[in-house]
Formats: sequence, structure tokens, C-alpha cells
Amino acid sequence: MSRLTNIGIDVMSEEKSSSELIAGGIQALSVFPNFNLYVVGNQEIIETYLKRVSYPKSRLTIIPSTEIIGMKEDPTTAARKKTNASIVIGLDKLKEGVIDSFFSSGHTGAILSAALLKVGRIPGVKRPAIASPMPTSMNQKVSLFLDAGANVDCLPEYLKQFAIMGYVYTHHVLRIKNPKIGLLNLGEEEIKGNKLTKEAYTLIKNLPYPFVGNVEPHAFFKNDADVVICDGFVGNIFLKCAEALAEQISGIMKIQLTQNLITKLGALLLRKPFKRVSQEMTASKYGGAPLLGLRKPVFIGHGRSDARSVLNAIGIAIRDVEMQTHALIETEINNINAISTPSSKT
Amino acid sequence: MSRLTNIGIDVMSEEKSSSELIAGGIQALSVFPNFNLYVVGNQEIIETYLKRVSYPKSRLTIIPSTEIIGMKEDPTTAARKKTNASIVIGLDKLKEGVIDSFFSSGHTGAILSAALLKVGRIPGVKRPAIASPMPTSMNQKVSLFLDAGANVDCLPEYLKQFAIMGYVYTHHVLRIKNPKIGLLNLGEEEIKGNKLTKEAYTLIKNLPYPFVGNVEPHAFFKNDADVVICDGFVGNIFLKCAEALAEQISGIMKIQLTQNLITKLGALLLRKPFKRVSQEMTASKYGGAPLLGLRKPVFIGHGRSDARSVLNAIGIAIRDVEMQTHALIETEINNINAISTPSSKT
Repeated sequence: MSRLTNIGIDVMSEEKSSSELIAGGIQALSVFPNFNLYVVGNQEIIETYLKRVSYPKSRLTIIPSTEIIGMKEDPTTAARKKTNASIVIGLDKLKEGVIDSFFSSGHTGAILSAALLKVGRIPGVKRPAIASPMPTSMNQKVSLFLDAGANVDCLPEYLKQFAIMGYVYTHHVLRIKNPKIGLLNLGEEEIKGNKLTKEAYTLIKNLPYPFVGNVEPHAFFKNDADVVICDGFVGNIFLKCAEALAEQISGIMKIQLTQNLITKLGALLLRKPFKRVSQEMTASKYGGAPLLGLRKPVFIGHGRSDARSVLNAIGIAIRDVEMQTHALIETEINNINAISTPSSKT
Repeated sequence: MSRLTNIGIDVMSEEKSSSELIAGGIQALSVFPNFNLYVVGNQEIIETYLKRVSYPKSRLTIIPSTEIIGMKEDPTTAARKKTNASIVIGLDKLKEGVIDSFFSSGHTGAILSAALLKVGRIPGVKRPAIASPMPTSMNQKVSLFLDAGANVDCLPEYLKQFAIMGYVYTHHVLRIKNPKIGLLNLGEEEIKGNKLTKEAYTLIKNLPYPFVGNVEPHAFFKNDADVVICDGFVGNIFLKCAEALAEQISGIMKIQLTQNLITKLGALLLRKPFKRVSQEMTASKYGGAPLLGLRKPVFIGHGRSDARSVLNAIGIAIRDVEMQTHALIETEINNINAISTPSSKT
């Protein structure tokens, strides 16, 4: 009989309490029967929390860490020098095979640096990408958006590989059959865009996947594509713009809704719909953002990841290990490289 | 006595009726006493509308045009070949000095192409930029955002010039004294960003203006900078993301608010605040987006510009002519070029 999947989670965060993050792990233990949980973090904090809750003890292991990588630290230096940080220790355990997958909502740059250092790239993959599942439409649909920030300067070839990796992940893990690929751009027509998107367009068009062409932001939010490709600079700005604007609107709303008794009553009557809107705009139910292109699975959570995010991230991580996504990506990348680089003898 | 300022407006649009756009012009005639209005468009449509309204006849001139440039047309070809299009005729009149400023809410690319062809760049300016005034905070503040889409591939030097032109326009036309300049980026620290933003950072830092450094999207919406610089690809994606998401949220809201009697009552009580939020999120009160870097002033309106947008655009256009912004930009660009390119004799 095959052993259970071992999922590691980092519970040290600057924005959320460890208790909140562990709580998500404990919930996952009861929701998903087929995995063991490895909790990476301050041993005392974790043990104190665990004393207060009931959980299947045989399925939970603590991996102690004594340092945290702060959000303002230089990622490369921290990844190399802070050998006792939860991120670094978690990735060590992933490398050693103690765990099969690692989730952290810590410093994104540090996770990326440490993952490249410890786990490394899949042979044939030029650059790993952060693939962010984003809510896109009123029908609770999601698009996988990559690169969300790992590579600020990209070559067209990288974008082509993002499309391959995004396709495999979306098809096998997010269970969207034959997902449609789109290229984030400022116009629909093939000739639109900058030098990078124009060259990437041709490369992605030639892949053996359904390609819907250029996707403008309004088409993105209408879920015209299941996988949306862009360079990491544009992707990160796009994500942060969406997040900041949603906060901005909700801030203005709050001020307006508490202006007088009538608006307060209105707001009270609309409590449920408001909650529903905010739920539809959050991606937490789709789990963490995988770092696609690494030899072993690493997931990044939002800094504000809560118990529910951790629960969902674990569900996705289990599915990802079961499907052996990184092996599928390796095969697909090499198959396509073989097709697009014909032997020099011919 | 100096003659009145002559402002030309294009009233041919694919998204709004000519009546709506002329109405904005007529309103402006009563709000602003110090200008003459030149209405460019289909003569019959304009005359039919004018028969139904009263206005100071001596201050309004019709400039007939017989063609429209469609939103899907190739901008360069249309700008060259459609010599009877409202955009092209308007820019001809600007070139000839019949009008002092031209506003159009037509095909942005075609306006840009035709403007470069007819009016040309200010000597010393490498690339003109679309400078979009964007609402940014709960206090009804605005940031000038450029380039909003004229230049999809930029060199650091272009971004430096955008900062110079944005500073002059914001200081003199938007009347924000000594506006703070920021660089749109994915992190605050100087080392953050891609190759372009890192190099542009140094160039902009050395300009004689208040520089707040890198501005992330959330800081942008908090109005941390009055002038925000980016390349036209990122800028256009950012603008379209903000617009699309605002629509998305309002779409989800509408569905939620009409679900049952309670939510309908709540929505009724909140009609005023909702309207207020949507007003705060729209930029129409700041007028059109100037094409900075041209020899004569051209303003671009949103495709959905209505009477109010036209009214406000005319107000801004008058101020812009009075301040002789394009001459100020020419002086400032050349002064700074002189400083940063020291004579080879020294």
C-alpha cells in the first residue's frame, strides 16, 4: 500500500497568527483523510495551540524552526543565510523527501529564492513562474494567471513555457479540461501589444492547446481564458491593481454606508449580499499559487492567508501531489521542446 | 485686446450620440465665457440639434466632416487616408491655427497617429505620452497617470521625459503646486522592478522635482504621488484593469441587490451612497487626457465620454491654452536636456 501524502505548511507569518494558520491545517485533517500534516514553525507556539484542540495525533508532525524571514528582508540573502527560518527548513524537508509539498504564506521572494536553491528547476524549464488562481466572473469561475511576479524581465520563450506549465496545472489540478490559453494584452488583435507579447503570441499560437489569443483586462474578468499569460512585472502590477482597487471601493463604500440612519439600515439589509460579493472576489477557495517549473511542488499563499485559505491550499496541494504535476510538466516541456527544435540532420 | 481661445471638439463617436457631445459643448458656452466653440462633425446632425437649443450663435462654428474612423480600423492607415474624418479635419484646423486646442473621444490610436502627422512633436521630446487624470482616493483627489498607452516599448529616457511633462501639466493646468512624482512599480525599494524601472528610477530621481520613489498600486490609490510614471503597456493594462474590475464589482452587486425584497429595499435606501461611490471612481470631472509632448494641445476623451465629460474637458482645455503648457514643456525639456548633457568642453 502506498504511503499517505505528506504536506508541509509554514505557520510563521507577519500578518496572521500561527494559531490561525495551524487551525486551517487541523481543519484539513478532518476534511481530507488521505494525508499527513507537517507543521513548520515555532515549536512552543504550535504545541501550546495543539493542547487546546483535538486532532488525529498520528497524522501531525511538528518541524521546529526558530527564525522568520521578514517582509522587508532581501530575499536572496535571507534564503541563503537564515538557515533556521521556517521557509528554509520547510524547503529542506521538501528536498529531503520528508514532505511531498510545501505551502508558505511568507515572503514570496524568499520562498522563490530558497526553492530555486534547495529544490531547483525542472530540466528544460528556463524560469519557474508564480501561477495565481484568480476569481474572474460572476459564475464563480477562476483563471490561472501567470507569471504573477517571479520574473520581472521575460523573453518570449519564457511566456511560451508559462503557457505549457499553466495548461498542465489547470487541466490536471484545477480540473478544467483542455483549458483555453490567453495572452494578457492591451488589444485583441494579433498585432497589438509590445515587442514581448507580439513575439510570444506566435510561440503560444503554435502550441497544441486551445488558444483564444490576446485577452484584454475586461475579457480576463469575463473568464474568456482559463490560463492567462503575461510577464511577471505586468502580472504583479495587474494583481496588485485589482487588489488595491477592490480595497479602495470597499473603503469608500464603508464611509458612505455609515453616513446616516437610512444608509445604516440599508447596509444592514444588504449584509448578506455584501458578504457574498467579497467572497466572490477572493481567491482563497482555490488554494495557494503554485510555483510552476520546480522539481517539487511549492505553493505560495497570500500574506493575509487565513484558516480557510490554508485548508483549501492543502486540498489543492494533495491533488497536485497525487497527479504528479511536476513530472507531467517535465514530460510536456520536453515533448514540446523536441517538436519545436527539429533535429539538425533533417 | 487678445482674441478668445478657440476650442475644437469632435462630436462623432461610435459609443455616444453626437447630441450628447454637442450638449456638453453648449453647456460649456454658458459656463465659460472666454472661448469660442468649434464643433467638428456631420453638419446635418449638428444643425438639427442646434435648432432645438439656444446658445450664443456668434461663439459657435461648425466644421463639417463626412467620415468617421471606426474603433477597429488600423490607426496609421486611417489617419493618413481618411482625410474627411472628424479627427483628421479637427487636427488640420489645429495645425492651421483655426482652433487652439482639439478634443476627441474617438479612436485613440488614430488621434495619436494623426496628431503626430499634422501637429508633430515638440523639439527635444522623444515620445508624446497620453496623460490620464485618475481618481485615486476617498478625498476626491486625482493623480496624473502617464503613459496610459501611447508607447508600448519604452526606454528609460522616455520615462524621464514623461515625468518632466507630467510635472509641468499637473503644476500649471491641474493646479497642484509642486506635484510629487512617483514611479509605478511592484515594490517600494529602489532596487525593485524590471530593467526599465530600475534605470528610469535613477533618471527621475535626478530631476529637480519632489520624487517619492516607487509607487505600488495600493499607494497609487492612496494618492501617494500626484504624477505617476510608467511605460505605455503597463499603464494601459493598469487603467483597463481598474476599469474592468470596477465594472465587475458593480455587476456582481447589481445581481446580489435584486435578489429579494429585503435586498431591493436595502438597495433603494443606499441609492445615494452608491451613486456617490460611482462618481468618486470616475475621472470625467478632470477633463480629457492630454497628449503631452505635441506642439499644440490635443485631448483624448474616454469612448464613453458624455456631456459632463465634454464640459469638463473644455474647461481644462481652456486653462491649458491660457497657460501655454506646450511652450512651458518645450522650455522645461530643453533646460533639463541642457543640464543633463553637459557641454563636451568642460
